[in-house]
Amino acid sequence: MKQVTFWYDFASTYSYLAALRVEEVASRHDVEVIWQPFLLGPIFGAQGWTDSPFNIYEAKGKYMWRDMARLAEEQGLLFKRPETFPQNSLLAGRIACLGKGEGWGADFTRAVYTAQFGEGRGISAPEDLAPLLTGLGLDPADVLARATSPDGKLALRHGTDAAIAAGVFGAPSFTTEDGELFWGSDRLEQAVAWAATHGG
Amino acid sequence: MKQVTFWYDFASTYSYLAALRVEEVASRHDVEVIWQPFLLGPIFGAQGWTDSPFNIYEAKGKYMWRDMARLAEEQGLLFKRPETFPQNSLLAGRIACLGKGEGWGADFTRAVYTAQFGEGRGISAPEDLAPLLTGLGLDPADVLARATSPDGKLALRHGTDAAIAAGVFGAPSFTTEDGELFWGSDRLEQAVAWAATHGG
Repeated sequence: MKQVTFWYDFASTYSYLAALRVEEVASRHDVEVIWQPFLLGPIFGAQGWTDSPFNIYEAKGKYMWRDMARLAEEQGLLFKRPETFPQNSLLAGRIACLGKGEGWGADFTRAVYTAQFGEGRGISAPEDLAPLLTGLGLDPADVLARATSPDGKLALRHGTDAAIAAGVFGAPSFTTEDGELFWGSDRLEQAVAWAATHGG
Repeated sequence: MKQVTFWYDFASTYSYLAALRVEEVASRHDVEVIWQPFLLGPIFGAQGWTDSPFNIYEAKGKYMWRDMARLAEEQGLLFKRPETFPQNSLLAGRIACLGKGEGWGADFTRAVYTAQFGEGRGISAPEDLAPLLTGLGLDPADVLARATSPDGKLALRHGTDAAIAAGVFGAPSFTTEDGELFWGSDRLEQAVAWAATHGG
């Protein structure tokens, strides 16, 4: 089965739109989705940004929130702008890495994005994420302990290193087995179609 | 008839993709296209950029050229990266403003974008643009003189002022009669559909 890798950071607004439809699009093309969390922070930092470019460039930020609202409506998704943006995505990213290896990474990811950008809720703190884990039938204390263990931390670091090696510079991104890179929720359909017809 | 305003700068790569299909998309929705040239320079300058962000941010630039090649192929368009990027778009913008008032602005715009990004040619100098004007049945000497007259210069400045007033921060952009702003060739279809169903 052909594969597409979906690279995402929980601080990324447009990744919400991608996360909530990537499986449906991929299944239409018989393509398997590899859900790969990473952190944008080190990548943005290397470009000299210490905040989201949507906060640094005010016009772009104002536009992004309106664009998100329109696109979420088109996609039939809830949308509510959280008070804080961007939120610290470190813990959620570590948990998603753990879930990736245990088969619940995609479900957790959709739950976090929906909480954050569908309902405007916080996703940075353990108490924000515990109810989402419970909702998936997981034991929050156990998951949080393992996700923040040395191995848990290393998994997200490896994800970020792999993103950098793949040329990823923003989120969401998609890569195919023949090394093509696609950036943005807008490119999801094109990336999946490419994955279905090239390499692998 | 409902209207959509198409804002473009000849230095913008993605505006090529929009310019070559906007009329077809708009005609499907019975929407009229207002072709409005403007200059990105003053807008980027206000954000602290003195070069294209695709040159300032190397990874983004490298990606953009690959993305353009893929999208042009999908759209059935020629694509050749020009040696110089961005090119000075001042003269072409002034001429397009003149053509806007005389009914040949859209044809001239498509010719300039195709020369630049379809064939990789220069578009900054009068001798680059003269053959394109001749191809449209116009007298290059006459057009160049009028486009660079005080009134000709003023028309492009007014276009840029109007872009800023409309909240435009990049190209291509689209605005509708009820004040919605859409940014990027990716948003062309959405903008035209919005124009067809809202306001006016």
